[in-house]
Amino acid sequence: MKFCSHCGSDQLRFDIPEGDNRPRYWCPACQTIHYQNPKIVVGALPVWEGRILLCKRAIHPRAGYWTLPAGFMENGETLQEGAARETWEEACATVNISDLYTVFNLPHIYQVYVFFLGELADGKFGVGDESSDAGLFLPEEIPWDELAFPTITRTLKFYLQDMKTGDFPIRVQDIAPLGTPKPKLEP
Amino acid sequence: MKFCSHCGSDQLRFDIPEGDNRPRYWCPACQTIHYQNPKIVVGALPVWEGRILLCKRAIHPRAGYWTLPAGFMENGETLQEGAARETWEEACATVNISDLYTVFNLPHIYQVYVFFLGELADGKFGVGDESSDAGLFLPEEIPWDELAFPTITRTLKFYLQDMKTGDFPIRVQDIAPLGTPKPKLEP
Ligand SMILES: [Zn+2]
Ligand SMILES: [Zn+2]
Repeated sequence: MKFCSHCGSDQLRFDIPEGDNRPRYWCPACQTIHYQNPKIVVGALPVWEGRILLCKRAIHPRAGYWTLPAGFMENGETLQEGAARETWEEACATVNISDLYTVFNLPHIYQVYVFFLGELADGKFGVGDESSDAGLFLPEEIPWDELAFPTITRTLKFYLQDMKTGDFPIRVQDIAPLGTPKPKLEP
Repeated sequence: MKFCSHCGSDQLRFDIPEGDNRPRYWCPACQTIHYQNPKIVVGALPVWEGRILLCKRAIHPRAGYWTLPAGFMENGETLQEGAARETWEEACATVNISDLYTVFNLPHIYQVYVFFLGELADGKFGVGDESSDAGLFLPEEIPWDELAFPTITRTLKFYLQDMKTGDFPIRVQDIAPLGTPKPKLEP
């Protein structure tokens, strides 16, 4: 951030505004404080007849790696609507979203990931603009070494584990940067 | 948003950028797309010896009304750290955050509310900068007609209901604008 989006001033400061307790971008010319807050990444774990829908990413970051449909939540939608939209955009598939399943804190990159369980409406899918491939995977077919993000790996591991009991409790976990010994929260 | 925060141009447009599918603020001069995404409001339901900690808001909106400690999640923190920070800032109280409890979609104001259960560390509290009062309330003392937001009312109602069974399942609900007949999701 180099210019004030409110008045155009190039004299932005980054320090603690009066009455606040943490550094912010703010504009001495018009007094606007430019708050920056974590973003929500919302996704789905869409299943069809015992198989899980994965997409191969065609875009940065982690192009060429497999992911569950997921992306930044948009203004004006609910978490569930966002999860369904991402499934449509990345895999051309209609998913009926059901329960909240995993929530991950990624404080080092200012993100919170939220995944929902869901079932494909009719088993149909395709390859969306941001994907180079898509497919329905049996548990034993999941490409563990080619998954895009730790949030995907963990969500899939929980799902396979929970399939054995038929009970899918919500998990809330932290994911730390690579190299950090271990996460703060385990189930 | 009137000026590009990247290059200072005052020629921002608000329409669908090439390759996108929804209107955004974007800058023809430097091609920066200024994404806007929902914000997370994170809060706690702090209890102590059967009483619930509420704060009276000293600031806009809903000044003079009672709330659970809650506010915008900050970059660099986890949801739980945010809930504890808000409890400290609004009620000068140390809370040990435990389980995720309620999640509310408020798509019309681009927010997601997330509340955690918690217990006060030592029962001590005070009145934070953004509060005009604070107190520990028995269930029968909760000022239902003076609560600040529907998210607070619903979270407290669930809690009183769940106290009877000792089971506190996570609720995920939509909250629609005033005047809308009913929410999409009920438990
Ligand atoms: Zn300014
Ligand atoms: Zn620009």
